[in-house]
Amino acid sequence: MLNLQTKKQKFYEPLSLESGRMLLEYKLAYETYGTLNADKNNVIVVCHALTGSHHAAGKYKNDDKSGWWDGLIGKNKAIDTDKFYVICVSILGSCYGSTSPLSIDKSTGKQYRLNFPVLAISDVVKAQMRLFKHLGINQAHAVIGGSLGGMQALCFAIEFADFAKNVIILASTYQTKPWAIAFNKIGIEAIKNDPEFKNGEYNEHEILKNGLKGMAYGRMAGHISFLSPDSMDKKFGRNYVKTDGLYELFGRFSVDTYLQYNSINFTKRFDPLSYLYITKMMNIFDCTRHYDSLEDALSPIKAKLTLIAFSSDLLFPPSCMQQMQESLLKLGKNSKFILIDSDYGHDAFLVEIDKFQNHVREALNE
Amino acid sequence: MLNLQTKKQKFYEPLSLESGRMLLEYKLAYETYGTLNADKNNVIVVCHALTGSHHAAGKYKNDDKSGWWDGLIGKNKAIDTDKFYVICVSILGSCYGSTSPLSIDKSTGKQYRLNFPVLAISDVVKAQMRLFKHLGINQAHAVIGGSLGGMQALCFAIEFADFAKNVIILASTYQTKPWAIAFNKIGIEAIKNDPEFKNGEYNEHEILKNGLKGMAYGRMAGHISFLSPDSMDKKFGRNYVKTDGLYELFGRFSVDTYLQYNSINFTKRFDPLSYLYITKMMNIFDCTRHYDSLEDALSPIKAKLTLIAFSSDLLFPPSCMQQMQESLLKLGKNSKFILIDSDYGHDAFLVEIDKFQNHVREALNE
Repeated sequence: MLNLQTKKQKFYEPLSLESGRMLLEYKLAYETYGTLNADKNNVIVVCHALTGSHHAAGKYKNDDKSGWWDGLIGKNKAIDTDKFYVICVSILGSCYGSTSPLSIDKSTGKQYRLNFPVLAISDVVKAQMRLFKHLGINQAHAVIGGSLGGMQALCFAIEFADFAKNVIILASTYQTKPWAIAFNKIGIEAIKNDPEFKNGEYNEHEILKNGLKGMAYGRMAGHISFLSPDSMDKKFGRNYVKTDGLYELFGRFSVDTYLQYNSINFTKRFDPLSYLYITKMMNIFDCTRHYDSLEDALSPIKAKLTLIAFSSDLLFPPSCMQQMQESLLKLGKNSKFILIDSDYGHDAFLVEIDKFQNHVREALNE
Repeated sequence: MLNLQTKKQKFYEPLSLESGRMLLEYKLAYETYGTLNADKNNVIVVCHALTGSHHAAGKYKNDDKSGWWDGLIGKNKAIDTDKFYVICVSILGSCYGSTSPLSIDKSTGKQYRLNFPVLAISDVVKAQMRLFKHLGINQAHAVIGGSLGGMQALCFAIEFADFAKNVIILASTYQTKPWAIAFNKIGIEAIKNDPEFKNGEYNEHEILKNGLKGMAYGRMAGHISFLSPDSMDKKFGRNYVKTDGLYELFGRFSVDTYLQYNSINFTKRFDPLSYLYITKMMNIFDCTRHYDSLEDALSPIKAKLTLIAFSSDLLFPPSCMQQMQESLLKLGKNSKFILIDSDYGHDAFLVEIDKFQNHVREALNE
């Protein structure tokens, strides 16, 4: 059992953002597992995905649910907390304790709401670097993340090339492709147009109680994009809800109840403004933006890279990571591309830990 | 130029439905192209997809848009109207002139609305057979359809095995898989919960003027499912709307405007109740339901089958049609499976006519 406690750190020095705007001050919520050694060189930074949080492993007291990567992080696990000091930070914009659209804008004394600045992956990474510096950590043994967390890991590798010795990227990409942007569009439109969203001025406590329907539609789209035709066949088939009539207009298949259940639950744990800002962050992610080519963008990298893709991932298909690998090899970088055969689609980086944990262990212990 | 006119036919004999319910009377809207020969044996039945209509080819006076399969149907085209008499019928439940949830229920004198019975593919096919009988047509040279139209074509082949000599099925399946059901779920939930839907009691003229937002979200999901990651890359890439700022929260990529434009347009031409009933019809389609196996289900078929699948179709992936082909060959049926290499996803059966028209021509003229 890990001894868990959410830690918070506030920073009073303004953070300049990629957009040209600025956060006058900000706070970060984070969790750590394991013990920082005397040389402060056993740090592993774990980056969370779109709707994740700093709670990556272990259980809180009186909570029956473990952190989102508990299968990977802990005593004797691939990210061994007997050996490593693991840090996971809730990204700026998210709703689990770090500065978000619901935080107070110091310049107005009111919550930001829709005046919150658009954040880029580079921004949330830069904000984390300040935390590490504050903790006296100048180098990480590794940075690891999947999906949006993988984008952060890549950004660490490019923009803070001296920071991490190893960077492990799972189920991610060097730029978000239109397929992913399209899925995000459903949530963006449905949230924005939901009368209960009130142009961002909703009561944040009420909205979690009732669940914003518009966000539920977006999350349904998300859940589809996280799976694949094959994984749905295996998981649900054409099973029908036994108490619903086949010829009832609103009768449901198992896949319907899965989407319904998960999307409604989601609206009771996640803030709609955070959802909008983080999908935006994902959509505009493109590590090549300020470079002439992908090769050019990857050229600053000094870390050893491990790229783990999943065969049935439609959201961030293996081809993106393969392209990265080709560029990295051309550049003579130390990089390994691993394709995991999986039917679980994008979700594989969360649910098929058995299939890739040894690759992570190896990358960390080589 | 085809001389176009929507024809209507009303039937006063009750239609028993798969659900155990009954339509006391119904009407069908249809269009024909070409001339019926004296032997009445040059008929080609064209079946439309989810949101299609009987207007498959040609242009109406003062209309600048052609029918949905105009590239395939006409003088000297693959379905040559100099040679064949082509009939396309708006299916029951749809909103272009055939009996629908907005029709008057004879037993109450009021519109059906949510009391409209759930229809199965078998029902809409049976209803069409009555029309053909009424027109003195006892046999078709061919039945052809894509997507939901392909389901109808398959149903003709199984349930009216003596009717069509040739059956051509494109981008379809023998049963709807959970991937497709999941995409439909977004529209079902978003329509049902939209306050403007008013539990099906909306004003049908007003709703077309304003466009039901809930249906727009469902249609966005539909448009995603009709494409593929590759087709989106080619069609949109990461192009951004020039007048939108990259760091504006609601700034849009090209793919966003595509989804927005098409989904909003759709809400101004399609009825939400029809959408619910036809997605339901698609979801419950499973030609094996009353049989022990796919092979068993296909055993009544006498027609020569042509199965045309598209490599990047994620909605009804080629594997479904391939399974059908294997069963048909085991049964010793006359069947041909053609896999078209395409990046256009499910949409290919509508937009890549060049790639498959010769296969259709061949199937019709052998």
